Amino acid sequence: MDYVYGPGRNHLFVPGPVNIPEPVIRAMNRNNEDYRSPAVPALTKTLLEDVKKIFKTTSGTPFLIPTTGTGAWESALTNTLSPGDRIVSFLIGQFSLLWIDQQQRLNFNVDVIESDWGQGANLDILASKLAADTAHTIKAICIVHNETATGVTNNLAKVRKILDDYRHPALFLVDGVSSIGALDYRMDEWGIDVSLTGSQKALSLPTGIGFVCASPKALEASKTAKSVRVFFDWKDYLKFYNMGTFWPYTPSIQLLYGLRAALDLIFEEGLDNVIARHSRLGKATRLAVEAWGLKNCTQKEEWFSDTVTAVVVPPYIDSSEIVRRGWKRYNLSLGLGLNKVAGKVFRIGHLGNLNELQLLGCLAGVEMILKDVGYPVKLGSGVAAACAYLQNNIPLIPSRI
Amino acid sequence: MDYVYGPGRNHLFVPGPVNIPEPVIRAMNRNNEDYRSPAVPALTKTLLEDVKKIFKTTSGTPFLIPTTGTGAWESALTNTLSPGDRIVSFLIGQFSLLWIDQQQRLNFNVDVIESDWGQGANLDILASKLAADTAHTIKAICIVHNETATGVTNNLAKVRKILDDYRHPALFLVDGVSSIGALDYRMDEWGIDVSLTGSQKALSLPTGIGFVCASPKALEASKTAKSVRVFFDWKDYLKFYNMGTFWPYTPSIQLLYGLRAALDLIFEEGLDNVIARHSRLGKATRLAVEAWGLKNCTQKEEWFSDTVTAVVVPPYIDSSEIVRRGWKRYNLSLGLGLNKVAGKVFRIGHLGNLNELQLLGCLAGVEMILKDVGYPVKLGSGVAAACAYLQNNIPLIPSRI
Amino acid sequence: MDYVYGPGRNHLFVPGPVNIPEPVIRAMNRNNEDYRSPAVPALTKTLLEDVKKIFKTTSGTPFLIPTTGTGAWESALTNTLSPGDRIVSFLIGQFSLLWIDQQQRLNFNVDVIESDWGQGANLDILASKLAADTAHTIKAICIVHNETATGVTNNLAKVRKILDDYRHPALFLVDGVSSIGALDYRMDEWGIDVSLTGSQKALSLPTGIGFVCASPKALEASKTAKSVRVFFDWKDYLKFYNMGTFWPYTPSIQLLYGLRAALDLIFEEGLDNVIARHSRLGKATRLAVEAWGLKNCTQKEEWFSDTVTAVVVPPYIDSSEIVRRGWKRYNLSLGLGLNKVAGKVFRIGHLGNLNELQLLGCLAGVEMILKDVGYPVKLGSGVAAACAYLQNNIPLIPSRI
Amino acid sequence: MDYVYGPGRNHLFVPGPVNIPEPVIRAMNRNNEDYRSPAVPALTKTLLEDVKKIFKTTSGTPFLIPTTGTGAWESALTNTLSPGDRIVSFLIGQFSLLWIDQQQRLNFNVDVIESDWGQGANLDILASKLAADTAHTIKAICIVHNETATGVTNNLAKVRKILDDYRHPALFLVDGVSSIGALDYRMDEWGIDVSLTGSQKALSLPTGIGFVCASPKALEASKTAKSVRVFFDWKDYLKFYNMGTFWPYTPSIQLLYGLRAALDLIFEEGLDNVIARHSRLGKATRLAVEAWGLKNCTQKEEWFSDTVTAVVVPPYIDSSEIVRRGWKRYNLSLGLGLNKVAGKVFRIGHLGNLNELQLLGCLAGVEMILKDVGYPVKLGSGVAAACAYLQNNIPLIPSRI
Repeated sequence: MDYVYGPGRNHLFVPGPVNIPEPVIRAMNRNNEDYRSPAVPALTKTLLEDVKKIFKTTSGTPFLIPTTGTGAWESALTNTLSPGDRIVSFLIGQFSLLWIDQQQRLNFNVDVIESDWGQGANLDILASKLAADTAHTIKAICIVHNETATGVTNNLAKVRKILDDYRHPALFLVDGVSSIGALDYRMDEWGIDVSLTGSQKALSLPTGIGFVCASPKALEASKTAKSVRVFFDWKDYLKFYNMGTFWPYTPSIQLLYGLRAALDLIFEEGLDNVIARHSRLGKATRLAVEAWGLKNCTQKEEWFSDTVTAVVVPPYIDSSEIVRRGWKRYNLSLGLGLNKVAGKVFRIGHLGNLNELQLLGCLAGVEMILKDVGYPVKLGSGVAAACAYLQNNIPLIPSRI
Repeated sequence: MDYVYGPGRNHLFVPGPVNIPEPVIRAMNRNNEDYRSPAVPALTKTLLEDVKKIFKTTSGTPFLIPTTGTGAWESALTNTLSPGDRIVSFLIGQFSLLWIDQQQRLNFNVDVIESDWGQGANLDILASKLAADTAHTIKAICIVHNETATGVTNNLAKVRKILDDYRHPALFLVDGVSSIGALDYRMDEWGIDVSLTGSQKALSLPTGIGFVCASPKALEASKTAKSVRVFFDWKDYLKFYNMGTFWPYTPSIQLLYGLRAALDLIFEEGLDNVIARHSRLGKATRLAVEAWGLKNCTQKEEWFSDTVTAVVVPPYIDSSEIVRRGWKRYNLSLGLGLNKVAGKVFRIGHLGNLNELQLLGCLAGVEMILKDVGYPVKLGSGVAAACAYLQNNIPLIPSRI
Repeated sequence: MDYVYGPGRNHLFVPGPVNIPEPVIRAMNRNNEDYRSPAVPALTKTLLEDVKKIFKTTSGTPFLIPTTGTGAWESALTNTLSPGDRIVSFLIGQFSLLWIDQQQRLNFNVDVIESDWGQGANLDILASKLAADTAHTIKAICIVHNETATGVTNNLAKVRKILDDYRHPALFLVDGVSSIGALDYRMDEWGIDVSLTGSQKALSLPTGIGFVCASPKALEASKTAKSVRVFFDWKDYLKFYNMGTFWPYTPSIQLLYGLRAALDLIFEEGLDNVIARHSRLGKATRLAVEAWGLKNCTQKEEWFSDTVTAVVVPPYIDSSEIVRRGWKRYNLSLGLGLNKVAGKVFRIGHLGNLNELQLLGCLAGVEMILKDVGYPVKLGSGVAAACAYLQNNIPLIPSRI
Repeated sequence: MDYVYGPGRNHLFVPGPVNIPEPVIRAMNRNNEDYRSPAVPALTKTLLEDVKKIFKTTSGTPFLIPTTGTGAWESALTNTLSPGDRIVSFLIGQFSLLWIDQQQRLNFNVDVIESDWGQGANLDILASKLAADTAHTIKAICIVHNETATGVTNNLAKVRKILDDYRHPALFLVDGVSSIGALDYRMDEWGIDVSLTGSQKALSLPTGIGFVCASPKALEASKTAKSVRVFFDWKDYLKFYNMGTFWPYTPSIQLLYGLRAALDLIFEEGLDNVIARHSRLGKATRLAVEAWGLKNCTQKEEWFSDTVTAVVVPPYIDSSEIVRRGWKRYNLSLGLGLNKVAGKVFRIGHLGNLNELQLLGCLAGVEMILKDVGYPVKLGSGVAAACAYLQNNIPLIPSRI
């Protein structure tokens, strides 16, 4: 499409879809295949095993559904819950809002705990609700691990602790769309019942696979959940898992091979190293924001996100203009502010297969854009702050030592 | 995956996923992009316009849903119908059976008209049901245009005529998964209310887009349909269409560019030429089957499919062995017999971006396999019959004249 | 380029460039890299080692020159010979003719032994020349292993034997462009001093690497050879081999990774199995030609080539019309007759990463073309003859047993 | 190759091979084709026409030789000169040195004008030599437009002027390897007789095409030049140009399509805009170097190169360690110092399909490396200086306005 070409690489810093590494692009560069041949099930088997490592679960059952994160949400909910079920859900930004909208349209009885955009989930209110719910009317807690709209990471270990403190049997459903594969995530340790993510986020693939992983308790719940579902029904998958052919309907051959390559890259780097890298990228970004004299939309350090940073602009600037300008002048793609924070924040996504120098190029670009739109930034200041930290903390690339 | 490599090209003749042409593979060979930049909506707009040409509709509204054919089914049903609605559905093979299973699980009141596998939809019974239904309790007719399991093509014009004859207002929902883009299909002329297909069939893309196209009547119905839906809800798409950003959730960038290339190839060849090519491929295959002394699963010529041929093997042969052998010895992928016809038929898919010499290689392979498994085929006989027809009918390639 | 598009795969049966297997296309789908980083030398080292296996040499030194077969010829000659040197060279078709032309333009004293096109090298004359040359004025024997223009394979073992019989010290230079990696080739056993081939032939890569492999004797000769050379000079390569950086000038990163993949595929299949596959493809083609009632340009069975078959057409047919028609109507690419046999033969290349069903599609296409141009072929006859042989001889694909 | 993998993109800043833009990688992602079909000549014809625009010539004849820059050199020399011919050549760095080495090995009588590495060609000495050469014994002037080892750009217009001042008929041969397509280059206006470059430089392709463009005068000279040549002989090309088939031997199909895409991108951006972009990149780099308190190897502003900057490090630092560290820690590929300046300079290549934010990421990386190796750089200083300039000078991307 000629009308979009710009010289050089596009600098892709939206918080998804993210950059796809070359080995993954290569792996997907292929013709279709018969998914009923012996090859595809053999490949699928390795994928299901290895995906569990990303979720840090040994007891979970993963489903690789040909859908997006929105579909993964629906799969998580409809397989475990029945219409009218009471669920507690946290509204802290645009994506938790959309999930809640879905929950309501799926006819659940949603008990919404709202926070200011920029704050994390209010777990004190959760605690009081659980305390009050001695009848166990609450069937599930739904929480977005990392709210992509505001760059807020919730503390899942704490949610688990509260559930445990009250010995509450509610299912624990987690949207890990912009966290799993990038942030510390421990499905088994934290007693998460359904984890979900999408291929175009930390796994650095194209859109097209909704990953849903169910604990034994969630699987058990799926046997009695009355929500209507067919395409998203785990039962069909389980039937084909048992037959060893794995797929109730046609998967994307390209995404399967791409996922194989993506997992191989993560394991080669080491999942913990991947998480540490995201931590460096997040920290470096926040240091730059601070150096620019701007505010992070996230209001407290405990919620800082290592995958996306929402930067608050001064009231006299329209953050959408920053995003437009990035694309038009610098071949830089930043994330818009959404809904309540539209025009007020722009977002830097720093997740997936990304390294520090890529981020520094982006930060330099943001500085020039800030100047373009009339913010009195000191050019180089953010990059300097980020470099000072990174230069002390980047490890040697293990394969090159 | 080393355990599958075989020398030379894989000969992919399952009825989906089908061969992807090189220009489409190339178009998809790319990094992700920000789908909120001005480029993706501009691209999407052209796609939505051009997809309508494939469906032969000017009044329809297409939805490109990140899902498979199964999801497209669900989208068609849940957006137009309410639980308990009476629908007439034809059971003539595995895929119509699966759709009916879905219809039932979605809580519709399914009035099944069953035929022998190998026969088309019994339209006489439809006529009598419509005649009897003066109260218009039948809300929709659901029909698979081309039953992929048996290679049976139903006559949609006739369905329309019957509906018209009885002035019945039922919605007319068509699964065109293995037909649209390969067989003659006229959404507007035949008064079809919902048409659907999948990207990995005649459009010759990877799996990942479920195409659903809604007539104005279907769109109207969607306003009152009470089936629960979120991911598949047209409303969300329509909202984003109105905003000009088109996507309620993240599309696959790669598939959008791939679809652009796939449509360009179809228009360059000419849709009518594409259909004529499929007609040649179907005819040639059937001539070969006849020359081998084998039966077409399809019982009458009026139902012969130009996209897939199910070949009945003699009782002393297991058709699965034919498929296994094709893969193990000849790098040829054929379709298994499914369900009722498992072991009894094997299938040759001849749809998508495929030419005559590719088919002839496949037919030669089938001949050798038949010999391998003990069927006394005269080697070369099927190829000879196919060639005799093709040599008289293949046109010059327009771009090379 | 729109003006060439045709539906389906192009059937590429010219004797080079040949079909590239998907894993190789994938491996080359990459950005450039710094060839002075530690990675490229490490990769190169494995390539040099493994290329020797294709040449069946342990003592040879390979050079991967960024050039074509024509450049490889020049490298072989200029590094081992001095202007005025007497060399014996066989003229049996267009490619041996072109090599001789090069030899003459490089100022060697070429003693040409000519045969009819369709015959192999006249080794009796070679024997008599060597017998007469007691003064050892003949410095080199230059022979094309497989003459691509006529489909003639020369007997290299016999050449070696004659050299040995006369204890003649002449260098033995072999053009293995359309043989190495497809036909039985034993550099060490046959005492070949320089072997050469091109990447776009049996190795199934794009054009761009001229492979030249020098025996210790050839390397020794290169120290005193007075032919002027720079780009093709082995000395520069040897200097960089010694330094461990390998490249005197920039290699194609893509071809290096492609070669790695191509070699991996050959070793996975097994070089002997690759050769056996070519033997089957050659035999099957010749059986088809015979069934069509046409003549092989190659006049005796001992010279039959398993990589290319030149088919003689009746005098009333212009073989160029066959090639044109293949491309225009069937998306089939055949080889033209060249020079003396222009208009009289067309060529079927059957080398590289190719399987039997691909060939059978081609043969079916040739039958239709023959009919198109007025030759009274019995459709299916060639395919039948080929299938009868192949069905008895194709092994199971080892990785799929 | 696992041992080289590093997270994120490799930052490729060697002065060749350079980054390949995605559309070019896509265009090359294809199977081989018959180069004797009508399609390849048709494509080639457009390439030859359009390549001339890059050289800014209408009267020149381009040759796209399957070789590297070294081969292009040889083609330029051997087609226009005879052994023993006197030529004037400038030694100003490693690449001019290598060309001179080639000139000497090809038996020309090379009159070397040497400058310090870091200085441009000494044109005063050229003038005096031409003045003295009233007998016109000097047959050619050979000059490297942009010395890649030191980042020095010579003034070709001035060379032309000197030749004209003395009405000297010597051929004017120019190595434009790291200039053509990036720097201002006017073959016709400057009366250049042979221009040459390589595909892996400003054209942003893989290695594999040596571009040589001959003026009418050079073509005339080629008729009588006595240097021995075959592979590099223009005559063979001209013969096939006349026949309309264009190729004396097999070209790389992939590179032809890649070149088509590369040229399309350049024309879409506008050649003058491409040159202006390189000017910005060069200027920004030099400002950063200055801000770091380091010296440019290039001694005077008039020679500053906009495609590569060689940075002099303090004596207590080994510049090779900077390059090693870039690769090992930051996934950044910088150019080594070569020969006389080995250990003393490192090089930043800033040519080809590259944008400002990519460069800024590199500059930030260099700052961290400098700190790593003990140079007291002020982090952010170079980026700040570059940004201050760039923010004022980057135009909007025309296709996105």
